[in-house]
This record gives sequence, C-alpha cells and structure tokens, in this order.
Amino acid sequence: MTTISNPKAFLTSLFDAAVSAADPAGTISRYLPKLPKGRTIVVGAGKASAQMARAFENVWDGPLEGLVVTRYGFSTPCERIEIIEAAHPVPDAAGFEASTRILETVEGLTEDDLVVALISGGGSALLPSPPNGLSLEDEFAVNRVLLASGAPISSMNTVRKHVSAIKGGRLAVAAYPAKVVSLLVSDIPGDHPQFIASGPTVADAANRQDALRIVGQYGMELPAAVMAHLNSSNADAPQPDDLKLVRAEHHIIASAAKSLESAADIAQKAGIEAAIISDAIEGESREAARTQAAMAKEILHRNRPFNKPVVLLSGGETTVTIKGKGKGGPNTEFLLSLAMDINGEANIHALSADTDGIDGSEDNAGAFVDGGTIAKMREAGMDPVTFLENNDAWSAFNQIGELFVPGPTGTNVNDFRAILIS
Amino acid sequence: MTTISNPKAFLTSLFDAAVSAADPAGTISRYLPKLPKGRTIVVGAGKASAQMARAFENVWDGPLEGLVVTRYGFSTPCERIEIIEAAHPVPDAAGFEASTRILETVEGLTEDDLVVALISGGGSALLPSPPNGLSLEDEFAVNRVLLASGAPISSMNTVRKHVSAIKGGRLAVAAYPAKVVSLLVSDIPGDHPQFIASGPTVADAANRQDALRIVGQYGMELPAAVMAHLNSSNADAPQPDDLKLVRAEHHIIASAAKSLESAADIAQKAGIEAAIISDAIEGESREAARTQAAMAKEILHRNRPFNKPVVLLSGGETTVTIKGKGKGGPNTEFLLSLAMDINGEANIHALSADTDGIDGSEDNAGAFVDGGTIAKMREAGMDPVTFLENNDAWSAFNQIGELFVPGPTGTNVNDFRAILIS
Repeated sequence: MTTISNPKAFLTSLFDAAVSAADPAGTISRYLPKLPKGRTIVVGAGKASAQMARAFENVWDGPLEGLVVTRYGFSTPCERIEIIEAAHPVPDAAGFEASTRILETVEGLTEDDLVVALISGGGSALLPSPPNGLSLEDEFAVNRVLLASGAPISSMNTVRKHVSAIKGGRLAVAAYPAKVVSLLVSDIPGDHPQFIASGPTVADAANRQDALRIVGQYGMELPAAVMAHLNSSNADAPQPDDLKLVRAEHHIIASAAKSLESAADIAQKAGIEAAIISDAIEGESREAARTQAAMAKEILHRNRPFNKPVVLLSGGETTVTIKGKGKGGPNTEFLLSLAMDINGEANIHALSADTDGIDGSEDNAGAFVDGGTIAKMREAGMDPVTFLENNDAWSAFNQIGELFVPGPTGTNVNDFRAILIS
Repeated sequence: MTTISNPKAFLTSLFDAAVSAADPAGTISRYLPKLPKGRTIVVGAGKASAQMARAFENVWDGPLEGLVVTRYGFSTPCERIEIIEAAHPVPDAAGFEASTRILETVEGLTEDDLVVALISGGGSALLPSPPNGLSLEDEFAVNRVLLASGAPISSMNTVRKHVSAIKGGRLAVAAYPAKVVSLLVSDIPGDHPQFIASGPTVADAANRQDALRIVGQYGMELPAAVMAHLNSSNADAPQPDDLKLVRAEHHIIASAAKSLESAADIAQKAGIEAAIISDAIEGESREAARTQAAMAKEILHRNRPFNKPVVLLSGGETTVTIKGKGKGGPNTEFLLSLAMDINGEANIHALSADTDGIDGSEDNAGAFVDGGTIAKMREAGMDPVTFLENNDAWSAFNQIGELFVPGPTGTNVNDFRAILIS
C-alpha cells in the first residue's frame, strides 16, 4: 500500500495541478484553431475573458482584432484586444454597449474569416442585448424576475435566450458565414457549452414554447412588451440544426472539472486513488464539511464506499453566513468545521483552498487540517468552537501556523478541496 | 443496464430492508448464546433495551431473570424482565438506583451462570454509578464538563470509564466468573463495542493516564474529589487482557451500518449498485442535502465517482434549526432542500425517512422527491422556498401527496436516506 510521507506536500501538489489546469495561459494553446485565410476577430464575455484574451493574443501567430467584456475590476492589460468593463451580476448600460459593439464587429464577415469567442462564467449578465422592440429596462426586468423565481439555471437560460439579440447562438448566427470557434472557461456543473454565459455561440434544443411554459410554471410576471415578444415568432432562437451554426466549434479550455481531473491524475501517479465527488458543492461551508467528514470517517473505519488510501476531491463554491466579526473565508471555515468532526482521527489530512489564491479577505488561499488540529489549537489555549462561532477561522489557523498561502494564482475555477484518508 | 420501473417501490423496499435489519425481534435469535448449566441473568441499558428485553425473552428457551434500564417513556411491556426508567441524556437518581441494582444482580454468580447484557445507545447516561468515595453529584458534574468540553466521543468515554463503578468493562468484571454475552444495538459510527454506552462489558486500551491527559488537554475543570480519584489507582479500569474479561463475547445485533448493508443487498439483488457513503451524517438537514444533491448530479452527468445506475445510501441523524412555524422533521426538510437542487434533473429519485417511522411531530416517516417535485409544487400554487424558510416541509409534501407513511416501526437506527441515480 502506498503511504504518503508528507501529506501537506502531497495535498499542495494536487492544488498546484488544479490551478495549472485552470490557467488559460497554460491551456489555450492546445485549442487554437488554424490561421484563417481572412481576418481573425476575437470577441468574448465573462469574468475570465480579459485573462483569456491576453492568453490568446500571446500565442496567436497572426493578425487579430476584437474586443471582450469583463466585470468591473477584472481587466488585464492586452495589446491587441480591447477590454471593456461592465456590471455583474446585475447588468448595466456598459454591458449593452459592449454587446452592441460585439455584434457589429462580427457583421459582414466572409467564410474565410474566423471569429474566436472567449466565453466564461458571468458572460450572460455582461451581455444585455434586448431584441427588436424591447428596451434595456425590459431585459433587466426579465433578469430580476428570473433570479427571484427559484427556477433552475437551465430554465432561466431558456427564458433569457428568447429575450435576447445575442444569447442562445445568436452571436454565432450573426457571424455567419465566418467560422466561429468558442473557447470556454466553464463554471457550470456538467460543462455544457449552452449553459455557459447563456451560450451566445451555441444553440440548444429548447424553443420558444419551452420558454413560455417555464414562464407559466414559475408564475413569472414579465413586462407586457416581453410577453408580446415571447408570443411572436421574433423570439424564436436558432436550433442546433440551424445551417448557420453547423461550422461552430466549442472547446472547454478550463473548468472545475478539468482541474479536479488534473489533481486526480497527480494523486494516481503518486499511487493514491482519487474520487471526484462533485465539481459543484454548494451550501454553508461549515455544513458541507460535516458531510465530507462523515464520508472520510466511513472510509477510514470501514473502507467504503472507497478503499483506503484515497483522496476525496471536490470543487464548487460554498458560502459563509456571517454572524461574527472574525476573519476568514469559505475554505478556512470549511476546514475548521471539518477539523472538529475528524478530531482525534489519525490518517485524515485535508486542504481546502480557493483556486484564485485568496480565501476571503486575507492573503491565504486556505489552510491544512488533520486529526490533531483541534488538539493543537487547544494546546495553544484556543477554543475552536468560539473561533467558528465568530467566523474567525483565519485567526484560528494563523495562530497554529496552518494557513496555506500560495499567493494569487491569476485564475479561478472556484474552491478546491482535497481530503486524504490513508 | 437495469432500469427501475417504479422508483418509489424500489426505494420503499430499501427502507423496509433497513428497518427489518434494525429490529431486535427479527435479529436477536441469530445471536443467542447456548443455554447455561446455571442461571441466566439479563441486564441492560439504553434507549432500545426494553425492546431488546422483550425480543430476548420471546425467544429464550429457558429460565431467566433480570432487569434493564431505559429512558423515560421508552418502556415496552415484558413478562420476565423488569424494566426501569431513568433520565437521558442528563442522568438522574433513578439511573443510579438502576445501575446499583444491576451490579447487585450480577454479583456472586458462578462459572455455570450466564449474563446477557442488552446494551444500546443512551446507556451511558442511564447508568450513573460513582465509584467509591465519589457522589452522584460528582459524576453529574463530570458529565456536564465533558459535554461542554468539545472533546470527541472517544475521549469523553475514556474519562467516563475512569469515573465509574460500572462502565469500561466493570460490569463484566463484577459478573465474573459467569460468562457474559453482550448483545448490542449500535448508534456509534464504526460500531466499536467499547464506545456503545461507554462499554460496561468491554475493556479498551485507554488507561488512567490517558484520561488525565484528556482532562488536561481540554482544560476540563473537574471537582477536586474527582481529580483525587483519577490520580489514584482506584480509577484504573480493566484492560483488554484482564483475565476476568477473556470469556466475554460481544455481538452487534443492529446498527445503522447493518441497516444500510441490508438495503444495499436488496438494491444489488435488483441489479442496482449501492454506495454507502456514511452511517453517521450529521449537521443541518437542508445543508446535508446540498452536498448529496451535488454528488447525485455528478453521477448523473459524469458517471463519477460511481457509474449509473447507483443508489447512494446514508444514515445518521441530521438536525433542523427551527426558525419558522411549520410542520416537518429532519427527513422532509432534507428532501425539500434536495428537491430544489435536483429541480429539473430527470432520473434522480430519493427517499429519506426515520427508521422509527416518525419524522418529527406528524405521522409520516419521510417523503419522496425527484426532479419534478418542485414543478409539481409550483403547479399546485406553492412556493417551495417559502415552505422551507418556514420549516414547513411536511405541509409542502402533504399538499402534493408525496409523504411516506409506513407507520411506527418499533425500532430505531436513526435516519435512512436513499438517492437513486439512473
């Protein structure tokens, strides 16, 4: 049986692999299309689009022009691609201007031209684009109603795609007959391109009747002009067999899933089986920890549902409901709760860290815990329960020297958790 | 690939198997010792001990006498075994009287005699028994300090065993030279006999020095008389190699783990792989559901860490922090939260139910959900979010006719959850 002599170094190597797999600068070159005879136009939208734009222009061996839109504060300096900032998650007029300019940029192209679409999470809010006859306020109203509806993301996207001039494949249709190659950083469980940023370059099978059914099912009260639009054939979105979309290509260049798979590869090369339990864990951080602790103990004591040694890997984004006044983020709070539940158990070691390198407000990405962490805190005179109640997990780990501080990574596919049971 | 034509019937069959495996009346006959030449004395303690006593006397083909202690309100009529009630989880004088009488009952036996100890969860609190020189109030004080210490259950038990005249194998030592056979209903992850009810018939390797170390580590402020006791050899507990314990036998006759294994067998016979993820899930019900929903979706969309079709099984006891005024229990609250996260996903079906047949205050054990549950609620004009916020999951499932009402089962190994992904 493989033993890991230095669990912290092992867990860190998994984090490094996850981050490396999530960095467009490292992965984009694997997905480059051929140089076209004609022009190369880069467009894009999303929280990672500026970073993707820089990565693309650094490796693209030909002329290019274009613009991408990202969230306020998320710009990265680019030399050839224009970066526009707009509001997220509630759209604003800057986003409208960006989507209008993006649509103009891809108009009038020929079949010798290439459009590279750099799409990442958040792109839907960054591309408000009301269709003919509707106002920007109408589209904002749709977004507000959707967010309050309780409908799943797939249903929300179906409605959005039918109240937009750019989403649901319409950007790719506008670019026809140019070839459209979409490079995507996914923040969506399942990594289906049609769900990332409401799929501006991807059609899906949902149609206008589906959108109307969802509006009725969730009792969505939309503006009268929007309802009139949805009841007209103007709202029809392109379908997957649309001839203007058949040349479109899509490549996921980074995702939580790919990051977890990369970490799993590294674990397996070290002789440790890896179980990816989810790339999309959500909910209260300290509570998510309780289920993962129970699973770790089941493996430790009963070798099920996996044989030891094994590392449980998960992604996603948990949240902290702040009640106290301490310092910390979702990852350290997850870990402090986990440490309590595995207290006294030998042979469980865990790392949880934000793949962007920053967990919350301090300079750490996360921390390390094991079955001795709580004893270490108590020996230092600390009461872990009090620290957790005060949302002060950062201080708890800082005092015992167990913070994990790799520095900003320059990428983000949400949280990374690894629990080694050996 | 096996398909399940009726998911509700399938999930119900798993619940039935879990309950059947947890019923002492059904399992105790498999663990009966041989009839002794001498007397048969039955003793016991725990929340299930009255029920175990009845099951035992119904199948015991010989004379017997004895007494067991259970929680107030947990009595079951027995013909030959006396049932005493006492306080749980905070001990009282009735428990002290019970443990004193139990120790008296097993004194003066011969090696031809048999002691059957019926032990289940809760037995530790039901058997206060201060050792020589200490008062009942001293032992109560120890219990209060332990519960407030944040120490893991195994550490708490180590201290308890060294401040008791009956725990940590001392009951079995008192019964020497009679043969002692312990039949146990486990509520402890791992089902280690020394942790169930603080192991009155089981020694473990922890000694008095370990107890003192734990007291120091957790800063436990114990009464001076207790500390004097712990610092004397009077506190030494029997060790596993104690000659007075070598004839003792232990059999787990029911546990959450056995129930889950029984359900897994039934699933596998129906052609569906089963993954037992934990027999001891704890934490806020609605939050535990979020992680399990994420896992179910990972399996559905990516076939990992298990291939479809598979049923995820878990036990344990989640809790509900009540903020609203509705009706419901941990199982329905788990399910309402789960239903929201799997909303719109085909091919996920779940049952969560209390193995005692009653989830909370109403007459249901749990409920059924699938990817269409939320749509069904919305079509009935209900807002699931409001029902969850009001802790009113029972009403939500009642209104759509999805409650699961098997009636009281007469046993209890906590909650049973099964999520079928196909």
